[in-house]
Amino acid sequence: MRSRPSLRWIGIVVALGIQGGSAKAQEPAGKAKEERPQDRTPGRGAFTPPLISPEVFPDRRVTFRLRAPNAKEVTVSGEWGGGARAMTSDESGTWTVTVGPIDADIYGYSFSVDGFQTLDPGNPAIKPMRSPRTSTLEVPGDPPRLHEFQDVNHGTVRVHEYRSRSLDRKRGLYIYTPPGYDQDPGARYPVLYLFHGSGDNEATWTAFGRAHLITDNLLARGKAKPLVIVMPDGHAAPSRPSGVPAEGRSRNVVAFERDLLDDVMPFVEANYRVRSDPASRAIAGLSMGGGQSLTIGLNHPDQFAWVGGFSAAVFDPERSIAPALANPTGTDSKLRLVWIACGKDDRLIENARQFSAVLKEKGIRHEFQTTEGGHSWPVWRRYLEEFVPLLFVEKP
Amino acid sequence: MRSRPSLRWIGIVVALGIQGGSAKAQEPAGKAKEERPQDRTPGRGAFTPPLISPEVFPDRRVTFRLRAPNAKEVTVSGEWGGGARAMTSDESGTWTVTVGPIDADIYGYSFSVDGFQTLDPGNPAIKPMRSPRTSTLEVPGDPPRLHEFQDVNHGTVRVHEYRSRSLDRKRGLYIYTPPGYDQDPGARYPVLYLFHGSGDNEATWTAFGRAHLITDNLLARGKAKPLVIVMPDGHAAPSRPSGVPAEGRSRNVVAFERDLLDDVMPFVEANYRVRSDPASRAIAGLSMGGGQSLTIGLNHPDQFAWVGGFSAAVFDPERSIAPALANPTGTDSKLRLVWIACGKDDRLIENARQFSAVLKEKGIRHEFQTTEGGHSWPVWRRYLEEFVPLLFVEKP
Repeated sequence: MRSRPSLRWIGIVVALGIQGGSAKAQEPAGKAKEERPQDRTPGRGAFTPPLISPEVFPDRRVTFRLRAPNAKEVTVSGEWGGGARAMTSDESGTWTVTVGPIDADIYGYSFSVDGFQTLDPGNPAIKPMRSPRTSTLEVPGDPPRLHEFQDVNHGTVRVHEYRSRSLDRKRGLYIYTPPGYDQDPGARYPVLYLFHGSGDNEATWTAFGRAHLITDNLLARGKAKPLVIVMPDGHAAPSRPSGVPAEGRSRNVVAFERDLLDDVMPFVEANYRVRSDPASRAIAGLSMGGGQSLTIGLNHPDQFAWVGGFSAAVFDPERSIAPALANPTGTDSKLRLVWIACGKDDRLIENARQFSAVLKEKGIRHEFQTTEGGHSWPVWRRYLEEFVPLLFVEKP
Repeated sequence: MRSRPSLRWIGIVVALGIQGGSAKAQEPAGKAKEERPQDRTPGRGAFTPPLISPEVFPDRRVTFRLRAPNAKEVTVSGEWGGGARAMTSDESGTWTVTVGPIDADIYGYSFSVDGFQTLDPGNPAIKPMRSPRTSTLEVPGDPPRLHEFQDVNHGTVRVHEYRSRSLDRKRGLYIYTPPGYDQDPGARYPVLYLFHGSGDNEATWTAFGRAHLITDNLLARGKAKPLVIVMPDGHAAPSRPSGVPAEGRSRNVVAFERDLLDDVMPFVEANYRVRSDPASRAIAGLSMGGGQSLTIGLNHPDQFAWVGGFSAAVFDPERSIAPALANPTGTDSKLRLVWIACGKDDRLIENARQFSAVLKEKGIRHEFQTTEGGHSWPVWRRYLEEFVPLLFVEKP
């Protein structure tokens, strides 16, 4: 076959008889560059060395760099706080600032270029979002923090697309399997359904939340039971402006619940070796996803015995968890854990208190923690580190 | 356990005795918004509806939208060609343009905001790159094209991080397993090692190249043998400016080859059910990755019997494939397929001709196609569609 060139494609098969002619000077590597669908930034020369941004120093100070020769004002701001920091430009139009020292953690950050908010084009690590304007800064800890890649056994993150029959469209789905999953085809695992926030998508809990590395590290320390984690796309209703009131939000919860119960869970149970008894199923989420996990979880205690809400956007409990409250004793008796946490600086804290109060009034046992922090990912990673070790543990 | 709040975390456990007080009005959903590490774009009001961009119409025209109230000039340009298209602003600072009709395909595109090149913040589909400035436009075909998600059986894309002992650092690795892989634990599969270009990373062949969907669709049509595809990170040497000459490039090939042979392949063969005889191993890549696949493949015919180079950045064959040329008859006898293709508008076309001529002169049989197109992904998706059906097929 090798000697018979294929004619199937649109291409022209060129006879192999072409001679190379005179020895050609070595091509400069720049010639191999992919055609870029872009305007050249004015002022760029033929060769511009790439910028390193962010650059993290051993003392945990961080330098950000951005090339923007036409800009008049550039700032950087991130989840480490302190607001926007002005950057200064050199003659070539490279803007720089050094911030910190910053606590070891993972942070989102953005540049503002004359008021236009953008991610860092020098940094391939992007926070997966519906509106991508945020890059990822990782400041490593010494010793490493629980969300960092460490030399332990690692699980696998698996990326799926599936056609949701409930929603009649293609959807994305990320699934974590623990270390050893492929090596023991006889084992069956408990499963955590884990939901993201309104700005995120199905990739955010791993790429930015590091749910897979947190779990790897907990398992390596013997602090958690091996489990499968299922991370669906939380945006089930046709997209609506954020900032509109809860009518749209409930439409989304309704659509999401249908997709979860009728499409995602059957897909997972057909394709993964997970247990399907309620005592082996947990459901949790953050912000919008916390609203989803608390409402779906509490309303279906016959499906999920372990429920978590991280800074949950859950409103109007009398209505949103009406099925759970209709038979609170029955609900309570089926649940193994209801774990609710919210930061004291979170705009949803009063909401969380109200939700907890309703549960208490009805006699539905739960843990409710008010923690340091606000409505942000550094808090949610810590919540996951706290929550996963509680799951699937026998009562003493 | 549920009734004993944990004290392990930094948080303060709040007694469950808090009463909700008077019924609170339902929180507006906007309150649940994550704290964003950003400056507000000046001129934004309290609520701004999200933009839809890109919007693809049934006639294959496409509207792009960008909010940039401070900008003086905004353009969009993309792989569909025709250069930068000016966009026009309305009073609120939303810039718009409609282009096309555009042929059904997948294209990278970028905005230029007063000369600052950026991806589309209204579009979550980003082309994975070392320098992320490019978004993804998919114009669906009727009938669907081979790279589109269709209602067929789907494989899985698996995301790994591993510590490369050769390179002494953490690296990323994407692996595609075909439909049915998990259902038949007795089956073993042939494997294609598939490499990306210099601007890309290990995610690009799936997220943007759609290698997984192309393979799903070929398999569903009976046009390919089920196979595993391994997509490593092609940047193995410490990062160097692009545009420097081949000395840096060869350093990268050397480091990449070591990581591939000593870390990636042992990892794959320990964790996946792949066959390890050379007749069951293929190696291919595009641009920089084509240079890697041609040099590593031709120099190791005892490891790989199937070799592909797509618009390969391969220079100085007398040196780069010296081991292959030292015993050309031996090399030729071990290879089952050497498939080389390059677009006639590609700046590397003369290079490809020269490489083919050297192989021909030495009697190393190969296919060499000159096709329509330049140095771009729409060409490389077609090459993969052409190449995968040729693999692991018995000689007649």
